[in-house]
Amino acid sequence: MIVEPGELLAAINSPDDLKKLSEDQLVQVSQELRQFIIDSVSIYGGHFGASLGVVELTVALHYVFDTPHDQLVWDVGHQAYGHKILTGRRDDFPTNRRYGGMSGFPKRKESEYDAFGVGHSSTSIGAALGMAVASDYKGEKDRQHIAVIGDGAMTAGMAFEALNHAGVANSNLLVILNDNCMSIDPNVGALKEYLTDITTSRTYNKVRDELWNVLGKLSKFGPNPQQIARKVESAMKATLLKQSNLFEALKFRYFGPVDGHDVQHLATILNDLKSIPGPKILHCVTVKGKGYALAEKDQTLWHAPGLFDKITGEIYKKHHDKPQAPKYQDVFGHTMVELAKQNDNVMGVTPAMPSGSSLNIMMEAMPDRAFDVGIAEQHAVVFSAGLATQGLVPFCNIYSSFMQRAYDQVLHDVALQNLNVVFCLDRAGFAGADGPTHHGCYDLAFMRCIPNMVVSAPMNEEELRNLMYTAQLPDMGPFSIRYPRGEGVMPEWRTPLKKIAVGTGRVVREGEGVAILSIGHIGNYAVKATSQLAAEGFNVGHFDMRFAKPLDEELLAAALSKYKAIVTVEDGCLQGGFGAAVLEFMADHGYSVPVQRLGIPDRVVEHGTQDELYKECGFDAAGIAAAVRELAGKVAVKAAVEKVIR
Amino acid sequence: MIVEPGELLAAINSPDDLKKLSEDQLVQVSQELRQFIIDSVSIYGGHFGASLGVVELTVALHYVFDTPHDQLVWDVGHQAYGHKILTGRRDDFPTNRRYGGMSGFPKRKESEYDAFGVGHSSTSIGAALGMAVASDYKGEKDRQHIAVIGDGAMTAGMAFEALNHAGVANSNLLVILNDNCMSIDPNVGALKEYLTDITTSRTYNKVRDELWNVLGKLSKFGPNPQQIARKVESAMKATLLKQSNLFEALKFRYFGPVDGHDVQHLATILNDLKSIPGPKILHCVTVKGKGYALAEKDQTLWHAPGLFDKITGEIYKKHHDKPQAPKYQDVFGHTMVELAKQNDNVMGVTPAMPSGSSLNIMMEAMPDRAFDVGIAEQHAVVFSAGLATQGLVPFCNIYSSFMQRAYDQVLHDVALQNLNVVFCLDRAGFAGADGPTHHGCYDLAFMRCIPNMVVSAPMNEEELRNLMYTAQLPDMGPFSIRYPRGEGVMPEWRTPLKKIAVGTGRVVREGEGVAILSIGHIGNYAVKATSQLAAEGFNVGHFDMRFAKPLDEELLAAALSKYKAIVTVEDGCLQGGFGAAVLEFMADHGYSVPVQRLGIPDRVVEHGTQDELYKECGFDAAGIAAAVRELAGKVAVKAAVEKVIR
Repeated sequence: MIVEPGELLAAINSPDDLKKLSEDQLVQVSQELRQFIIDSVSIYGGHFGASLGVVELTVALHYVFDTPHDQLVWDVGHQAYGHKILTGRRDDFPTNRRYGGMSGFPKRKESEYDAFGVGHSSTSIGAALGMAVASDYKGEKDRQHIAVIGDGAMTAGMAFEALNHAGVANSNLLVILNDNCMSIDPNVGALKEYLTDITTSRTYNKVRDELWNVLGKLSKFGPNPQQIARKVESAMKATLLKQSNLFEALKFRYFGPVDGHDVQHLATILNDLKSIPGPKILHCVTVKGKGYALAEKDQTLWHAPGLFDKITGEIYKKHHDKPQAPKYQDVFGHTMVELAKQNDNVMGVTPAMPSGSSLNIMMEAMPDRAFDVGIAEQHAVVFSAGLATQGLVPFCNIYSSFMQRAYDQVLHDVALQNLNVVFCLDRAGFAGADGPTHHGCYDLAFMRCIPNMVVSAPMNEEELRNLMYTAQLPDMGPFSIRYPRGEGVMPEWRTPLKKIAVGTGRVVREGEGVAILSIGHIGNYAVKATSQLAAEGFNVGHFDMRFAKPLDEELLAAALSKYKAIVTVEDGCLQGGFGAAVLEFMADHGYSVPVQRLGIPDRVVEHGTQDELYKECGFDAAGIAAAVRELAGKVAVKAAVEKVIR
Repeated sequence: MIVEPGELLAAINSPDDLKKLSEDQLVQVSQELRQFIIDSVSIYGGHFGASLGVVELTVALHYVFDTPHDQLVWDVGHQAYGHKILTGRRDDFPTNRRYGGMSGFPKRKESEYDAFGVGHSSTSIGAALGMAVASDYKGEKDRQHIAVIGDGAMTAGMAFEALNHAGVANSNLLVILNDNCMSIDPNVGALKEYLTDITTSRTYNKVRDELWNVLGKLSKFGPNPQQIARKVESAMKATLLKQSNLFEALKFRYFGPVDGHDVQHLATILNDLKSIPGPKILHCVTVKGKGYALAEKDQTLWHAPGLFDKITGEIYKKHHDKPQAPKYQDVFGHTMVELAKQNDNVMGVTPAMPSGSSLNIMMEAMPDRAFDVGIAEQHAVVFSAGLATQGLVPFCNIYSSFMQRAYDQVLHDVALQNLNVVFCLDRAGFAGADGPTHHGCYDLAFMRCIPNMVVSAPMNEEELRNLMYTAQLPDMGPFSIRYPRGEGVMPEWRTPLKKIAVGTGRVVREGEGVAILSIGHIGNYAVKATSQLAAEGFNVGHFDMRFAKPLDEELLAAALSKYKAIVTVEDGCLQGGFGAAVLEFMADHGYSVPVQRLGIPDRVVEHGTQDELYKECGFDAAGIAAAVRELAGKVAVKAAVEKVIR
């Protein structure tokens, strides 16, 4: 299946081609671009609503600005499909987000038009400011630097930090606020309400009403107070609007709000803004999913719907003959409600990922006990710490890679105070098609070095439930539970909740010679490996360690005494991770059997399906089996050599 | 020497005693509290200017609010000496910041009046909001929750994230903005200018002037337009000020600005605010160092001046008979200027630590190439990344423990894109008297797991200079250099700059049997240990590894082949740190000699001098020597046993 671009779009292989069009043709090319995105995403998958919402903005930006000399930074980047299509990557779309193919996000090494690699939110203003300050330093006076950022991303503190700096830096920076009231879920918080306030002009209306009201009461003083009022109103309008603006307070020149779907008007405004120096913000109001009715209506569902029939809007689902295991996410969501019903102290916190984490299940069931705090991981953790000081037990659910955003808060505000906050690290291990910015490779390493922190990972749904149950028991302190994106392994997952003693693993199978120590869901691949090896007559031991910290020292001591070699398996980085913890234990206690560590190597692993990436990194079932065979071979050779020597 | 409190202060052992005073006595007790702080800090040391600036606020808060039932969170906390003195810790002051003594910051386990442990900035609003939401949930309607935050701390993104949440949470939260225009250095950024704007009423004045101006022109319409104008002005004042306020935009009720040194007025206002529900902000204007003339004049110097003569203002300096080694900080600052003179691409970035990091040396010499971006570590890193995309080489200097605040940006924005940003991690290892919130224990572990990242630490000034020189050479990618607070070891430190090949260590001394592998400044303690051991006739090897990543594999292989046992030494956490890296190398390459790792254990280490803490953790010179002796003993026993068996 090939997606055919429209007539104008077919001729655009770079922004230079776009610039050849007349302003009148911008509407048509926008329509063609929108259609191409709908056609492509319906067939090849990917993010959907966000790119539809910025079609006109994308066309206008590349029409007006001299990219890539002018530098365009897309915040988050899942809205940049139009940008990719207009900058020479139209025909790459069948490979979008596929192993070895085009990234779903802007990426510097993919194109010179991608001024900054993105994925996590709210980096665009700071990065574009860095570029603008570099231009100042180099004397490139006419160079433009543009950050396109959503109202959701604007709630993250880093965006504010960058505004605070940019407001006084006086560099040539244009921030385009793409205001669609959405993160993946509806945006929340005071800033969102403020922006709604601006776009519906309530602020200005309120001041004006006050003026008319007062002057009405003053009618005894003059012949025509309402006439005076009109004059005053008109004269003061500019001042009032300007003074009452949050962005003007931060020394930005504010323009807008403007209709983000009027491409010709956008082109005119952007052209005008080119000649205005210093920091400025253009407030564009857009509709996420614009132009595809269903996507406009249910913006969360159509954020990244998977493959669908573009005519009927049917989202395809895989057909399964037998009952499927649930997603870990849904096990988390339902178990939260169960725990909260049993324990009045249990609360839920998510930074803007209610649907992604499935905390929305609790938010609907118990709205006073589950909070979406916006794209604000740092605040999510400190807010949780505040709750915990009052004896509550917040479960703070943050994707592993986003937890990096709140690392100091985990360490400084939770761990040093030994507060009982439970961190549920979703999307741990490989995130899949989202790629390196979203892979959760590092958490085992960066959590393990934090004092007081329990670091755990369930191998299946039952263990996830039991770890969650355990974490909310009294006096547990900081407790982290990591699990991957997607399905587990237990169709019958609603098992009774019971405590797992902290720092205890379990024997999955006894064997001889070589033992596999695994942590978390990847242990299921070790099960496949041991089955395969057993079929070859090779009886390998397997331990599901469950905790990277504290380690099950008793189980480890037993395994290290019995087996001649160890393979550790984790879907996390090898540096400082679970395997390293095993090595530390061995060194501290004088064990010295050969250890082969399997995990994520010390390089950037690109996007692909989880299974493709497990294979690439050598810890899919075949990789684990191969490592066991090789290690067993070495041990045998070594034993033979030693026998000869003796 | 004992500091005698004044008459009123002497009778105050808890806020209950304070509440017995009449409002008239608040001025006197404030004076006494200020004097007690001056007397105590001059003798015992500690933070100075910040606490003087909030004397009246502290008195008013504890006078009006029912602490600890009402919850008071001090942001950062170095301004909380008055709070500690009024809450039962007056007589503990001689132990302030001393090993085993009182913490220099609020700490939950020290007092029930310390509602939240602090140290890093900008956590107070989120933490107090968590407490307030917990009170909502529990139905504690009258409970008050107060965050006291400086204008410097307000620039950090997390404060904004918390405001964004609090504005719509409708909980009982009072934020007191302690506006003194200072961080440790003068505060910077658009927010600071905005606050100055408010306090000098420019905004309101501008609108008012506009109004008068317009009505003046309208004189033909009525008998007395100026009279109308006065009425309009008065009626609209509230609305205008409200609408034009940044905090009101975020749905806070804004009050102020008020004089933060008028204790009686503060008490009245705070009392009024108690009955106003929902999120509110009180803008207090204070003077850092208030009441001590020299401290008011040079606020950076008197932030934490050390011991001084309170009468003459002479700050005591240690007398030294021989030339002293410089601080690593100053070596950094001067070397920055040298490098920048040689290489036009070198730039400097600090988040609000110009004087602490000594980047101020470059800021003064080359103001267009060195930037203080405010308390905004996240932005500092992304801004640096933006600079690096343009071929510049930013040296981003951030204290190790504050780098935790920018972890995601280091990983996601710099490392994944392999940008040449140099991270200078100051205050690595133990920070000393500032204690656990400021100790830089974790960076070797959390940096080592980041792909593309070079992780290095100099053993002396020359190595620091050469690592800095190396880091700015072409195509180096992300490069981190960690060094401790305070003096190095080389009085003659201005050595010629030369390249150190990445991933190479050096032999400090050859020996036999046991080798010490050290990284960074702590290697000097290993030198002392080996000298001591040599005096005992024990010839121990010592390698200064310089890089935790990439490791010097050749040197390691040689050491592991020659020596029978290894001691690793680092002033960083044992979990996943440098010693773990050595174990990983050994496992991967089949080495199996005994390894004893020395470093920071997996628990919270409290405050004290660096030497006290090295000793406590067993890696001062005596500790290292003891570890070597013990390990050598074990190896000897093992060898003897093996001989018998064979």
